[in-house]
Amino acid sequence: MQQAKARRGKGLALRPAPRYCRAMPRFALKVEYHGAPFAGWQRQKEHPSVQGAIEAALARLEPGDHTIAAAGRTDAGVHGLGQVAHCDLQKDWDPFRLSEALNFHLKPNPVAITSCARVADDWHARFSAVERQYLFRILMRRAPATHEAGQVWQVPHELDAEAMQQAADHLIGHHDFTTFRSTICQAASPVKTLDELTVERVAGFTGPEIHFHVRARSFLHNQVRSFVGTLERVGAGSWSPADVKAALETRDRAACGPVCPGHGLYLARVGYPDPVFATDSR
Amino acid sequence: MQQAKARRGKGLALRPAPRYCRAMPRFALKVEYHGAPFAGWQRQKEHPSVQGAIEAALARLEPGDHTIAAAGRTDAGVHGLGQVAHCDLQKDWDPFRLSEALNFHLKPNPVAITSCARVADDWHARFSAVERQYLFRILMRRAPATHEAGQVWQVPHELDAEAMQQAADHLIGHHDFTTFRSTICQAASPVKTLDELTVERVAGFTGPEIHFHVRARSFLHNQVRSFVGTLERVGAGSWSPADVKAALETRDRAACGPVCPGHGLYLARVGYPDPVFATDSR
Repeated sequence: MQQAKARRGKGLALRPAPRYCRAMPRFALKVEYHGAPFAGWQRQKEHPSVQGAIEAALARLEPGDHTIAAAGRTDAGVHGLGQVAHCDLQKDWDPFRLSEALNFHLKPNPVAITSCARVADDWHARFSAVERQYLFRILMRRAPATHEAGQVWQVPHELDAEAMQQAADHLIGHHDFTTFRSTICQAASPVKTLDELTVERVAGFTGPEIHFHVRARSFLHNQVRSFVGTLERVGAGSWSPADVKAALETRDRAACGPVCPGHGLYLARVGYPDPVFATDSR
Repeated sequence: MQQAKARRGKGLALRPAPRYCRAMPRFALKVEYHGAPFAGWQRQKEHPSVQGAIEAALARLEPGDHTIAAAGRTDAGVHGLGQVAHCDLQKDWDPFRLSEALNFHLKPNPVAITSCARVADDWHARFSAVERQYLFRILMRRAPATHEAGQVWQVPHELDAEAMQQAADHLIGHHDFTTFRSTICQAASPVKTLDELTVERVAGFTGPEIHFHVRARSFLHNQVRSFVGTLERVGAGSWSPADVKAALETRDRAACGPVCPGHGLYLARVGYPDPVFATDSR
């Protein structure tokens, strides 16, 4: 015992105070990232991840292990525009300075903290969230994308936005979404309420795009990509809107259209009962 | 002579017909590219260039040396949205098939032929052009750009678009632009007519942007970047619009504001007396 105290006296001057001895200030981070270089949000031993990049940046500010939680664990290639995470730190950082310090240490990763706020100790980026909003971008043109490569799903043909909206209207509301759920989905129930699925044609920077705006309290695994892949078939004319209604009602994964690639998908916004970020630097 | 004929008989079956013996069909190419990986448009021995990439793709279609000409020789990092070039080929290609074949061989370069047309033998991408239009993008936010890195000039502060437009109005018209011309500019005269310089604030994908739309028959070297770098100082409040007028009238390169980086600059459109591209795949 005395030996242990002696060691501590000598060796601990440079170490941070032990984590368990007091409540640590909690910070919410609004996170933007380009999904291309990452195997997804979630930390992995062998592959780069967004979570791993942010935890490494935190370790540059306060040495030791950090574990952050996020509102949505995005897949490989999927982008963040308004992902939200939280972290617990030793020091009561000024939120703006914390975001600046993290952005400094995040370089050259394409990850940026666009806003930061001090939150209550029981606030949780994932469990306090009441709404997730996704954006999916399709670029319609034959010539390969140059500036948007990896940021859109490119199709070489025109899509009928009106037909896709008619099909999407069948999906809005409270349904059993088994058809549009990955077989590895771990959610307890396939029943969810889809609050919004808007199909919009926009001019785009290098060609016409279709934007899908999808909003719900929570989503099943691969749900948005299953929606978009199926709706694309409607836009191309090979499925009718009624086919999508029938596929939904079948409650059979095999009835789903092709699941589209992840690199057109963006976690756009996470909603909380009380606004978290007073000033948004974006 | 007979020896030469014999050699030709044996060896030339696989070679293309000599270039000088007949007029070769000429094609206009509309070219889009991301400037980041290139040392600029112009072919260089030691560095990758957009011209070099396209000429290499042409050599995959018709073996031998190719030299193409472009409307504007963009600098390192500068992007093309509507660059126009022309090439002379042996075969009377269907223009759509030519663009498809070039796009296939251009991979994985971020260069795409977005339109292609057969043009008259005396039509010239550079000398027939009567108008060039540039776009310059500034992203205004503190957090580092993720999706637009290398595609915008990022400034950490707000800019006053109205003040910049007032300053820009002094530049429009027929002037001696010595102040806004690189010292290595090779143009015969510094006198040019600027037809448009519009400053527009747009929402942007990840934050507010300022777009400069600049249009003239032709430009001096670094003219757009000299304009934007100077106008940014107005937008930030350290120059007044009247300062820009005075700088122009001084006709002294030293009176120019800082020249801004090239990676926010796009050659957006090239105008010709007669429309060149009937159908535009973009």
